[in-house]
Amino acid sequence: MGEADPVATNMRLKLPITCFILEIILIILFGTLVQYDHETDAKQWHNQSHEDYENDFYFRYPSFQDVHVMIFIGFGFLMTFLQRYGFSSVGFNFLIAAFALQWATLMQGFFHGLHGGKIHIGVESMINADFCTGSVLISFGAVLGKTSPVQLLVMAMFEVTLFAVNEFILLSILGTRDAGGSMTIHTFGAYFGLMVTRVLYRPNLDKSKHRNCSVYHSDLFAMIGTIYLWMFWPSFNSAITAHGDDQHRTAMNTYYSLAACTLSTYGMSALTAHDGKLDMVHIQNAALAGGVAVGTAGEMMLTPFGSMIVGFLAGVISVLGFKYLSPILEDKLKIQDTCGVHNLHGMPGVLGAIVGAVTAALASTDVYGGGLSDVFPDVASGDVTATKQGGIQAASLAVTLGIALLGGLIVGFILKLPIFGAPPDTICFEDSIYWEVSCEIIILYILYFFQSDLQVKC
Amino acid sequence: MGEADPVATNMRLKLPITCFILEIILIILFGTLVQYDHETDAKQWHNQSHEDYENDFYFRYPSFQDVHVMIFIGFGFLMTFLQRYGFSSVGFNFLIAAFALQWATLMQGFFHGLHGGKIHIGVESMINADFCTGSVLISFGAVLGKTSPVQLLVMAMFEVTLFAVNEFILLSILGTRDAGGSMTIHTFGAYFGLMVTRVLYRPNLDKSKHRNCSVYHSDLFAMIGTIYLWMFWPSFNSAITAHGDDQHRTAMNTYYSLAACTLSTYGMSALTAHDGKLDMVHIQNAALAGGVAVGTAGEMMLTPFGSMIVGFLAGVISVLGFKYLSPILEDKLKIQDTCGVHNLHGMPGVLGAIVGAVTAALASTDVYGGGLSDVFPDVASGDVTATKQGGIQAASLAVTLGIALLGGLIVGFILKLPIFGAPPDTICFEDSIYWEVSCEIIILYILYFFQSDLQVKC
Amino acid sequence: MGEADPVATNMRLKLPITCFILEIILIILFGTLVQYDHETDAKQWHNQSHEDYENDFYFRYPSFQDVHVMIFIGFGFLMTFLQRYGFSSVGFNFLIAAFALQWATLMQGFFHGLHGGKIHIGVESMINADFCTGSVLISFGAVLGKTSPVQLLVMAMFEVTLFAVNEFILLSILGTRDAGGSMTIHTFGAYFGLMVTRVLYRPNLDKSKHRNCSVYHSDLFAMIGTIYLWMFWPSFNSAITAHGDDQHRTAMNTYYSLAACTLSTYGMSALTAHDGKLDMVHIQNAALAGGVAVGTAGEMMLTPFGSMIVGFLAGVISVLGFKYLSPILEDKLKIQDTCGVHNLHGMPGVLGAIVGAVTAALASTDVYGGGLSDVFPDVASGDVTATKQGGIQAASLAVTLGIALLGGLIVGFILKLPIFGAPPDTICFEDSIYWEVSCEIIILYILYFFQSDLQVKC
Repeated sequence: MGEADPVATNMRLKLPITCFILEIILIILFGTLVQYDHETDAKQWHNQSHEDYENDFYFRYPSFQDVHVMIFIGFGFLMTFLQRYGFSSVGFNFLIAAFALQWATLMQGFFHGLHGGKIHIGVESMINADFCTGSVLISFGAVLGKTSPVQLLVMAMFEVTLFAVNEFILLSILGTRDAGGSMTIHTFGAYFGLMVTRVLYRPNLDKSKHRNCSVYHSDLFAMIGTIYLWMFWPSFNSAITAHGDDQHRTAMNTYYSLAACTLSTYGMSALTAHDGKLDMVHIQNAALAGGVAVGTAGEMMLTPFGSMIVGFLAGVISVLGFKYLSPILEDKLKIQDTCGVHNLHGMPGVLGAIVGAVTAALASTDVYGGGLSDVFPDVASGDVTATKQGGIQAASLAVTLGIALLGGLIVGFILKLPIFGAPPDTICFEDSIYWEVSCEIIILYILYFFQSDLQVKC
Repeated sequence: MGEADPVATNMRLKLPITCFILEIILIILFGTLVQYDHETDAKQWHNQSHEDYENDFYFRYPSFQDVHVMIFIGFGFLMTFLQRYGFSSVGFNFLIAAFALQWATLMQGFFHGLHGGKIHIGVESMINADFCTGSVLISFGAVLGKTSPVQLLVMAMFEVTLFAVNEFILLSILGTRDAGGSMTIHTFGAYFGLMVTRVLYRPNLDKSKHRNCSVYHSDLFAMIGTIYLWMFWPSFNSAITAHGDDQHRTAMNTYYSLAACTLSTYGMSALTAHDGKLDMVHIQNAALAGGVAVGTAGEMMLTPFGSMIVGFLAGVISVLGFKYLSPILEDKLKIQDTCGVHNLHGMPGVLGAIVGAVTAALASTDVYGGGLSDVFPDVASGDVTATKQGGIQAASLAVTLGIALLGGLIVGFILKLPIFGAPPDTICFEDSIYWEVSCEIIILYILYFFQSDLQVKC
Repeated sequence: MGEADPVATNMRLKLPITCFILEIILIILFGTLVQYDHETDAKQWHNQSHEDYENDFYFRYPSFQDVHVMIFIGFGFLMTFLQRYGFSSVGFNFLIAAFALQWATLMQGFFHGLHGGKIHIGVESMINADFCTGSVLISFGAVLGKTSPVQLLVMAMFEVTLFAVNEFILLSILGTRDAGGSMTIHTFGAYFGLMVTRVLYRPNLDKSKHRNCSVYHSDLFAMIGTIYLWMFWPSFNSAITAHGDDQHRTAMNTYYSLAACTLSTYGMSALTAHDGKLDMVHIQNAALAGGVAVGTAGEMMLTPFGSMIVGFLAGVISVLGFKYLSPILEDKLKIQDTCGVHNLHGMPGVLGAIVGAVTAALASTDVYGGGLSDVFPDVASGDVTATKQGGIQAASLAVTLGIALLGGLIVGFILKLPIFGAPPDTICFEDSIYWEVSCEIIILYILYFFQSDLQVKC
C-alpha cells in the first residue's frame, strides 16, 4: 500500500452498504430463526410454576452488565492509548461489537441453541454473544490502526463464525470446561488476530510510527479501559458458571488472581523498564493477565492460593512478553501486534488452558462433593475420569490454536483484497482518515511542528 | 442580552439562596410527608412474613444503579462534547439532577404514591425519581450553554411538576403503558426543552459560535457518556417493568434494538457526512435512538426481530435529523437545540410511542398467555380491548406533546425574567463565567490566538 | 529532602523487591490460612440444603462490584485532578489497593473470621477487604504527590493492620454499629493520613507548588471519580448491612443524604469562592460528604428527612473546611493535606459518628419492631439499653481517633526512613519521577515556558 489515496479509503459508499446489508441480513435471520426462550417469553414463563426470583435474569443480569461494560468501555478505552486514534478505538470497537453480538447470537444459537429449528435466547445467550464479541475485539487489538471499518466488519463476520465452530467443538463435542474462556475467547482471539496481522504485514509501517505511541491524556483514557476490565473480570469469568457456589467461587478466584497479578506486574515493570520507571503499557495490559489466566480454572476448586500463584505468573509472563518477545515477533516473525494482544491474551490464555487442564485432572468427589456435577458433569456422571478430563482440556487448547491460526490465515488473505479501503502505510494510527476531526487539530499540527524539532525519541 | 455584565451573571448570592431555599423546602416537605414503604421500614418488613430475597431491592437495585449511572455519568459526560463547557455540563447536570430527584420523589409521590396522606418510598420510587430527572436533563441538553445554574434549577422545579402531572394522566388516568418512557420521559423532555429554547431564542448567538463546537479530547469525554447510556439502556427500559419474564424480555429487546441502531447510525453517518467520514455528533447521539424508540414497546412481545427493525429505523431517522432537520429548526423555527435533543429524544420518542401503540393494539392472550396481566392489566381484566389500548397509547402521545409544548412555553417565559443571571450572547458555551478555571486556560488562549489565524472553518 | 537525586528515587530494585516479597508472603499465608467459606466451597454448599438464590452472592455481589468501582475508579480518578500526577494517582491507587485487599483479607480474617484456625472467605470478606482498602486510599489522598510507591506499600501494610485492630475493638469487643464505616473507614483513614503527612511535613514543598494545581482536563478526569463515588455510595453503605429491609433502607438513606449534600455544596461554593464562581475542588469533594456522614446511621431508621439534614450539614461543613480550615491546618499545624481528606472524610466522618450515636440512643422496638435485632442486636437481646448503645458509639469515635492518630504518628516516622525513595521537594506532584512519560511532555514544557511568562497566579 503506497501513498494516501483519498478515493480508496473513502467510506461514503463502502461503509453504508456494508452496514445496511449486514443489518438487513441479521434482521431477516432473526425474524425467521430467533424466539424468546422460556424465561423471556410471557406465555411460556407464566405457563410454568415458578417464583419470579427464580428467573435466570436475577442470577445473571448484573454479571451481564459488567461484561457489557468490559466489552464497550473496557476494550474501547483500553485501545485509546494511541495519541491520534481515540475516535477509531472507541468508535470502531463500538461498531464491530454491535454487529458481532447480533451475529454471534445467530452463530452460537445455530451451533448449540436450536430448539425445533429455532434459536432460543435469553440473558445467557446475551452473555455468550458478548463473550464472542470480546474475542473479535482482542483480534481488533492486534490490527489496531491499520484497518478500515469495513475490513473490521468483514473480519468480525468470519471470526464470529469460526469462534462458534471452535466453541461447539470444545464445549459440545469434547466436553471441555472453559467458563471464562481462556481458550475459547482469549487464546482464540489472540492467535486469530496475530495471524491476520501477520498476513497483513506492512513493511513500511514505520512511516506512521510517530503516531504509534501514546500521549499523556491518551494514556489516562486508556486507564479507564484497564481499570474497568480489571474490576469486572470476576463477573466475566463467573457470568455463565452454574448458579450458587460456582458463580460465587469463580468471582472470588478471579479477584485474588488479579490482585496478585497487579503486584507482579508493577514489580516486573520497574525491574525491566528504563531507569526503574514504570511503563504505562505494562500497567495497562499485563495487570489484566491474571483474569485471562484463571478463565478456565476459575470455576474449579483452584483456591485463592492457587489463583494468586496463577495471577502472579501471568503478570510476570506478560511483562516479559512486552519487553522481550514483542520486538522479536515484529522483527523476526513480521507480526505487528499494535496492542500486544499476544502478551495480554495469547500467552496468559495458554497458561490458563494449562492450569485448567491440570486442575481438572486433579478433580475428585473428595474436594467437590455434590458440586462435582456442576463443574465437571462428565466426570460426575462417570463418563470420563478426571485425568481424562484433563487430557480433553489440553487437547482443546491444541484445537483452539489450530482453528485460530488457520482461520486467521484465510481471513487475513480475504482482508488483503484491495476493496475494503485500508489506510495507506503513511496514514495508519490516524483518526482523520475515517472521521471528521474538529478544528483544534490544527493546533495539534503546530505542536507536532515544535515537537519534531525538539523531540529526541518517541 | 447584550454585553457581558459581570454583576448580572455573578452567582454569589443568587445560587446559594436558590439552593438553600429549595433544599430547606425539600427537607421540610420530606419531614412532613415522606415515610419508608413496607420494604424499607424495619418494623413493617419484619411484621410480615417473607423471605429476604423477596424484597424488591434485589429485583430492582442493580437496575437502579445502572439508571443512576446513565443520569449522572451518561447525561453528564455526553454533554461534555463542547470544548469549553465540560465543568458546566457535568457540574450543572450533577446539581439539577440532585435537586430534581428529591423534588420528583415528592411530586410523583403526591400524584401516585400517597398512602393515608403520606408518600411511601423505596427502590421503585427512587427509579421513578431518576426517570423524571432524566427528562429534565434532556431539556437541559436543548438549552446547554445558554443558561445559568439558577435558571436550570427553576426550570427543573417546573418541569418535574409538569412531568408528574403528565405521568399521572397517562399512567393513572388513561392506563397507558410506558415502562421505558418513550413518551413520559423522552418525548416530554425533548419537546419541553425545545419550546423553552425557542422562547429563549438568541438572535446573536453566533457571537459565541467559535465555542459551540468540540475538540478532540472533549469528543472522547463525550463518548464516555454515550457508551454508558448505550450499555445501560436495557436496564433503563426494564427497571420498573414487572418481575420475572417482563424485566428479562425488556432488557433483551432493548439490547437488540440498540445494536441494530448502531449499525444504521454508522451507515447513515458515512453516507451523509462530508467525504464519507464519520461524524462524532451522529455516533454520540443517533446510536442511542434505538433505546428511546423501544421505551414503550420494550416490555411487550415485540420480539428481537421487531426491536431490531425499530432500532434500525431510529438510527436512520436520528442521523437524518442531525443532518437535515436541525439546520431547518434553527434557521426557520428559531430553535437553537445545542445537543440536538430533537434527533435523539424527540423523533425517536414519537416513533417509540407509535410502535408502542401498534404493538399494544396487536396484543392477545394467544401471544402473552398469563403474562398479559403484567403487560396490559386493563386488557387482561377485560376493561379495554387491545385495539382500545392501542388507541389510548396514541392519545397519550398527543397529551404528552400538548403538555410538554404548553409547559415549555410558560416556563420559557418565566426563565426570560432578567433576574436569573443568564450568560450574555458573547459568553455562551463558556465555563469560566460560572466556574473558577485554573491557570492553564491562559495557554488555551494562546492557542486560540494561533487558531484564529490558521483556521478556516469550525 | 534537598535536590533531586535520581539514584535515591530509582525504583528499579526497591519496587520489585517490595512487590515480590509482599506478594510471596501473601501467597504463603493464603496457602496456609485461607479457605473457601460454606457458600463458595463446592462440597460444603452442596452438602447443605438450600436454593441457589439463597447464596449470599446474589444479595451482595452487585453491591460489591459498586464498591469495587468506588475503590479503583472512584478514588483513583478523584485524585487525577493534579495536572501532572494522573499516572501516579490512578496507578499507585491501583497498586496499593491490589496489595491492601489481599492483606486486609488476612488481617480482618485473623481478627474476626477464624474458624478452626482457618480464615473463611466469601463475598462479604471481599467487601470488607475493599472497605479496609478504602481507608488506606483516604490516607493516600493526604500524602498524594509526596510519596514513593514503596512508601505507600509500607504505609498500606501497617495501616491495614491497625485498621483491623480498630475494627475488631469496635465491632467485636464494643459491639459498635458502623456498617458504612463513618468511623472505621473514614475517620480512621483521614486522621491516620493526616498524622502521617504531619510527620512527613516538608517545609520546602512550595518548590513544587506550580504542579500542585489542576488543569482543565485533569479536573474533568477527577469528576469521573467524584461522580462514581457519589452514585455508588448507596451501595457502599448498604453492602454489608443485613439482608432485606436493611440493605434497602441504607441505600435509600444514603441516596437522599447525598442529594441534599450536593445542593448545600453548590450553594456554599458559590457563596465562599471568588466572585461567586463555583470551585471544582468543592464540587469534587464536598458533594460526597453526605455519603460519609450517614455511614454509621444509614442502616438505622434515620428517615430520608434525617438523612437529608445530615447530608446538608456535611456539605456545609466540608466546603467551609476547604475554604477556611485547610489553610490553617497547613500554616499553623504543618499538615499538608493534598486532597483535603480532612474536609471530605475527617470532619464528615466525625459528624457521621455523632449522628450514629444519637440515632442509636433513640432506638426502640416501637420504631424498629422485629428489625431491631438486625440493626442493634445487643439492644434487641437486652444486653445493653439504647442509651448505652449510643454511649458505646460515642466511645468508639474516641477509640478510632486515638488509634488513628497514634498509628499515623508511628507509621509516619517509619516512612521517614531515607530508604524508600521519596521524591525531593522540587519534584513532588510529578509523574515523570516514577513513570516513563511519553514524547508529548516536551510540548507541555514549551507550554510551561509560555505560561511562566504570562501567568499571574496559580
